[in-house]
Amino acid sequence: MNPSPAYDALVAHHRRVHDLEHLQAIATWDRMTHMPPAGGPARAAAQAALAVLIKQLQAEPTLALQFDAAVHEPLQGDAALNFARMRQARRIEAAIPAALAERRELATGAAMQAWGRARQDDNWDTFADAWAPVVAVTRESATRLGDALGLQPMDALLERWEPGLRIARVNALFAQVQGWLPPLLERALAAQANSPPPLEPVGPFPAAAQQRLCEQVMALLGFDFDAGRLDTTQHPFTGGVPEDVRMATRFDESNFLPALMGTIHETGHSRYQQNLPRAWLGQPLAGPHSAALHEGQALIFERQLAPEPAFCQLLAPLLHQAFGSQAAFEPDNLARLLRRIRPGTIRVAADELTYPLHVIVRVEIEQALVAGEIAVRDVPAWWHERMQAALGVGPQGAFSQGPLQDPHWVHGMFGYFPAYLLGAMVAAQCFAALRREVPDLQTQVAAGNCGPLGDWLAPRIWQQGARHDLDAMLQQATGEPLSAAALRAQLEQRHGRVH
Amino acid sequence: MNPSPAYDALVAHHRRVHDLEHLQAIATWDRMTHMPPAGGPARAAAQAALAVLIKQLQAEPTLALQFDAAVHEPLQGDAALNFARMRQARRIEAAIPAALAERRELATGAAMQAWGRARQDDNWDTFADAWAPVVAVTRESATRLGDALGLQPMDALLERWEPGLRIARVNALFAQVQGWLPPLLERALAAQANSPPPLEPVGPFPAAAQQRLCEQVMALLGFDFDAGRLDTTQHPFTGGVPEDVRMATRFDESNFLPALMGTIHETGHSRYQQNLPRAWLGQPLAGPHSAALHEGQALIFERQLAPEPAFCQLLAPLLHQAFGSQAAFEPDNLARLLRRIRPGTIRVAADELTYPLHVIVRVEIEQALVAGEIAVRDVPAWWHERMQAALGVGPQGAFSQGPLQDPHWVHGMFGYFPAYLLGAMVAAQCFAALRREVPDLQTQVAAGNCGPLGDWLAPRIWQQGARHDLDAMLQQATGEPLSAAALRAQLEQRHGRVH
Repeated sequence: MNPSPAYDALVAHHRRVHDLEHLQAIATWDRMTHMPPAGGPARAAAQAALAVLIKQLQAEPTLALQFDAAVHEPLQGDAALNFARMRQARRIEAAIPAALAERRELATGAAMQAWGRARQDDNWDTFADAWAPVVAVTRESATRLGDALGLQPMDALLERWEPGLRIARVNALFAQVQGWLPPLLERALAAQANSPPPLEPVGPFPAAAQQRLCEQVMALLGFDFDAGRLDTTQHPFTGGVPEDVRMATRFDESNFLPALMGTIHETGHSRYQQNLPRAWLGQPLAGPHSAALHEGQALIFERQLAPEPAFCQLLAPLLHQAFGSQAAFEPDNLARLLRRIRPGTIRVAADELTYPLHVIVRVEIEQALVAGEIAVRDVPAWWHERMQAALGVGPQGAFSQGPLQDPHWVHGMFGYFPAYLLGAMVAAQCFAALRREVPDLQTQVAAGNCGPLGDWLAPRIWQQGARHDLDAMLQQATGEPLSAAALRAQLEQRHGRVH
Repeated sequence: MNPSPAYDALVAHHRRVHDLEHLQAIATWDRMTHMPPAGGPARAAAQAALAVLIKQLQAEPTLALQFDAAVHEPLQGDAALNFARMRQARRIEAAIPAALAERRELATGAAMQAWGRARQDDNWDTFADAWAPVVAVTRESATRLGDALGLQPMDALLERWEPGLRIARVNALFAQVQGWLPPLLERALAAQANSPPPLEPVGPFPAAAQQRLCEQVMALLGFDFDAGRLDTTQHPFTGGVPEDVRMATRFDESNFLPALMGTIHETGHSRYQQNLPRAWLGQPLAGPHSAALHEGQALIFERQLAPEPAFCQLLAPLLHQAFGSQAAFEPDNLARLLRRIRPGTIRVAADELTYPLHVIVRVEIEQALVAGEIAVRDVPAWWHERMQAALGVGPQGAFSQGPLQDPHWVHGMFGYFPAYLLGAMVAAQCFAALRREVPDLQTQVAAGNCGPLGDWLAPRIWQQGARHDLDAMLQQATGEPLSAAALRAQLEQRHGRVH
């Protein structure tokens, strides 16, 4: 006799939703990469119809009965943990009443439209009118979610991205970074000013050659082309499903670095996806579980491995082959290009030293916004002042160089930004542990073998799925909970001295 | 007050199924064109999950109530016709009990697998064992469907593809063709034997150049690239949705004609799809309604327009541009290549004179099979004898050159084959009417304007959707019901004289 029929039915339900979301993922990938322009309205209708159907499946009364019944079933080990993850997700979902969810949907839809227009005509006020309802809905959701989970509102928002992590811990970690990073940045800028600049690669860099180069680098990094592919798109993204990961990027023929570094970053995300525990796919236990951990996997490849001399030695011949021989492609020069510091207004274009400061500014502002300490109309002034203090940039020109540069807040994604800096800590911490345990890593990489990264990460992180929260996962993988120490050590090692 | 709530609910239901099938169509297109090999199992699971969900929607008890209630609602005009089409489709579906449908599913799945193997190892007996249940299920379905619709079994199978058309009518039309075609074929072969053969184009023909050529020809023929695209695949097909048509073909670098002529054929299907009545998409009234009419649209482009001297004049410079100058690309030689008669064993490779005979053999055998006059084990002998009599080909070698060449019967698609020859009649009849009504068609085409074809077909056929059965549609478009006369006239005009 089956001892857990209710739990088994829940597993089947999650499996079915996973299958249906597979079709959404492929339809989205197609929309972003191949769909002809006039196909848009029919595609939107089709995807909306499936989204409604999935919502109906989630709302079926039998599902609630199964959750109630499974509590009394004798679940052990992974099954018990999987059920706990299912219940927590349902608790989070149930905390938001349908009417509020609908208001959020309407508000974010309108705000996204206003965002597009405001970036064109640089008008903060009309954007703010459309965005204020999103902030209001977010505050209300945070309070309700907090009540349901026994958390403060900002912690409740964070819980969706970083289960188990509290904002006080985030703030303490970020305060440490604010202690040592600004003086390091100052020293690095001074040292950089006193050195001759690295040689600049000379374009054009044909898109087809960039595509081949990116695919070669993905292969070097262990991307499984039997279970994924790379295409081109207007707005780069990584989509698809763990069984079939779809990366898409854009090639700027005057500069190959954005596509190459973006591809290395996304390959990290992709390898994580491709190596989530296969038997559990579709269940919450398969993960991913922590946004910082996911971001960390990408940054291990992009910010830890790529600027290393050993990896630049691997890249050099591929660049010569792709674009013809140039002195700028020599490993030393490449490493200098990848470590160059250039303070600017745009987060996604920031280097490894200024990037953390972009994140800290956002996290400070979003906490104040969620707490109601500042109003929507105050954001540009706060933004300007904080960016000036942190990075010495500004007065900014267009709002699209300022608070309108990221879509996260526009569609109500509050509590996600910490993951970008926590992810940098995760990456440095994992890479430091990996180097301790694989002392000849540099030699192996220089010889063309990047395999040790995946060999180390797969059992410790990727295949753990959602078994552990971030701290426990890092404790198990690196011997320590999350900390900023490895990030500091590495940035100081790279930038603390004149090179 | 809404006078037809039940009908409106049925319209919404059909719209929803249309939306969900959009996602199936795109997932299938992706599977055939872009999906990496290891993505297969997850994709199969995802598409199966949505198929099950669609079946559940069709089986909802409220739907049956709405059908009952809508009968009493005051529907007029298009709405009344649309409801009639809905009811007929439901009647056909309801005639097959779930258990029989499941047996059909299992039997066709096993037969398709056996078909793949039998084509490899050329073993009829093992295939026949797997296929016999498909034939049995087909016979039972035909009887049940016939009982439900008041039709003979074969007519019931035909009704799914050709509403309103009876097999006796098909047989009478085909008997006419059998009267005049064999002597015409004999004369044409004799004439051909007495002429020097056309010049053969010399390859290789690079795939990229073929792709560009095909896209140019699609554009010439009015394919809307804002609402569709052409990709490459192992097994050519046309998929997607009317709002976003996805053609996919395969390029043989030693011979460009199969891809080019296949593309011209599929462009006919695609333009029909792209021009179905937009406001009715998702409803049965939008069509397509008749397989012969659909096939006819493809054949108008492939068999009527393409071999015309005026169109060959258009093709010649594109071929020179794609593959370099060759005397074989001159319009006269091209026209001779496209009209060349080469009796052979393979239907899809057949020329316009022998193709009808391939179809007639299949239609004769499938009637005997459905009626139980012959058994599965008898098919090869019948096939051999009929093909020998009709085309003078054989004794055939492998079964894959004989009864295993087409998948139709293997997956239970009985009653479809007539559409291929009826479609040739439709095409000739429409083209003859078009030439009467647009006397300067040849001049316009030679000048690069193929627009008159779409201008004539769109209002008369494409935008009529499922308003009329085949005969009525042709009566309205050409002034006559379906007949073989135009096909005969045209084949005699092309092949009755020495050229």
